Amino acid sequence: MDKQRQFDKELEDLKKQLIHMAALAETMIDKAIGELVQRDARVAEKVPQYEEEINRLEITIDEAALTLLATRQPVAGDLRFIVAATKINGELERIGDLAVNITQNAQTLLAQPPLKPLIDLPHMADLARKMVRDSLDAFVGGDALLAQSVIMADDRVDALKDQVLRELLTYMLSDPRTIERALALILVSRHLERIGDHAVNIAEDVIYMTQGRDVRHPRTPKDRPPDLEV
Amino acid sequence: MDKQRQFDKELEDLKKQLIHMAALAETMIDKAIGELVQRDARVAEKVPQYEEEINRLEITIDEAALTLLATRQPVAGDLRFIVAATKINGELERIGDLAVNITQNAQTLLAQPPLKPLIDLPHMADLARKMVRDSLDAFVGGDALLAQSVIMADDRVDALKDQVLRELLTYMLSDPRTIERALALILVSRHLERIGDHAVNIAEDVIYMTQGRDVRHPRTPKDRPPDLEV
Repeated sequence: MDKQRQFDKELEDLKKQLIHMAALAETMIDKAIGELVQRDARVAEKVPQYEEEINRLEITIDEAALTLLATRQPVAGDLRFIVAATKINGELERIGDLAVNITQNAQTLLAQPPLKPLIDLPHMADLARKMVRDSLDAFVGGDALLAQSVIMADDRVDALKDQVLRELLTYMLSDPRTIERALALILVSRHLERIGDHAVNIAEDVIYMTQGRDVRHPRTPKDRPPDLEV
Repeated sequence: MDKQRQFDKELEDLKKQLIHMAALAETMIDKAIGELVQRDARVAEKVPQYEEEINRLEITIDEAALTLLATRQPVAGDLRFIVAATKINGELERIGDLAVNITQNAQTLLAQPPLKPLIDLPHMADLARKMVRDSLDAFVGGDALLAQSVIMADDRVDALKDQVLRELLTYMLSDPRTIERALALILVSRHLERIGDHAVNIAEDVIYMTQGRDVRHPRTPKDRPPDLEV
């Protein structure tokens, strides 16, 4: 195999490993929320195992990227792609951590009677998981438009987070016995919101990579609504 | 100037920019918590301006690192240093975001009478800020031992986070009128915890950089205590 074809294959392998890692992260989100909705800890029993796999992949991918940078000395698009890979790698690992955090909150919630049927949280989880999927598809396809749609989808996740908070506050205010469970559900919504944020980070890296243009700070903090009433 | 000296100077500039960025992030933490403790919004009035500066620095540093990778084609230690710089860059930017989040919670808290004197939160902020400082010092000095101490300090921040939660729960349970303020304070503690987590990420990158050894996943999730009772 000539040098260029070998390099192309190495880039392809890097892509495949990131896709695998993203699929694991999506599964972890799915299982963690599934545990909550189905009130069955067995649904998420493999999450710790997936997290170990994601952690191993993070190291493998970083090493592969460093090796490519050192041995192939890429420039322009390839260079941006590889540096983006090392960043996306870190985002995916943290998405996995957040899914683990959700299973920790689920432990508390499953030990007590259900507070309410869960509607907004699974919806948030679906949106967040789709954002992760789309951001990776955008990376793989170098698709800046798809990446842009991920950034826009984040507003819906944030709106749901605010809605969840408002609703759970009414429970807490009307019956102190609900406070611990409501708080655990609020924390779950925060974990999902952060998963969305990591997908946005990936999408911004993709746009930067594809267009050589930085969209990471399109909005200044004052354009953002404050963090609801709390 | 010969090529090697020019390259050394470029690496030195990269370091200086990261140190400046870290100093800004520390100031932002300081001002955000200062606003809460002193109950005076003017204390944090420059935080949005600092955030814009940090956002600009993130782009500048990424561009500088990419340029170094493309033009100098570094290997071994220099390569690891530059890739670490791009990662640390992202961590510092998010620390700035979290300081902004704290000022958003502060807006709510300042609009209502104080719930209690703040003791643990300023303590958490001091610890988190020191972790940020030490992680950057470790990066600049290539000091793996100092980086290790940052990772160990995180346990204290986590313990304080749990303590804050326990205490605020007792307020919420005994008087529903405290719920919104207690929740806002709990969210502040979570933001500080995440600042500590970002410092740990930096420290892990430093150890990886200095030793070529990965310490990013020393603990499996099951070793971690669950996310308290909620």
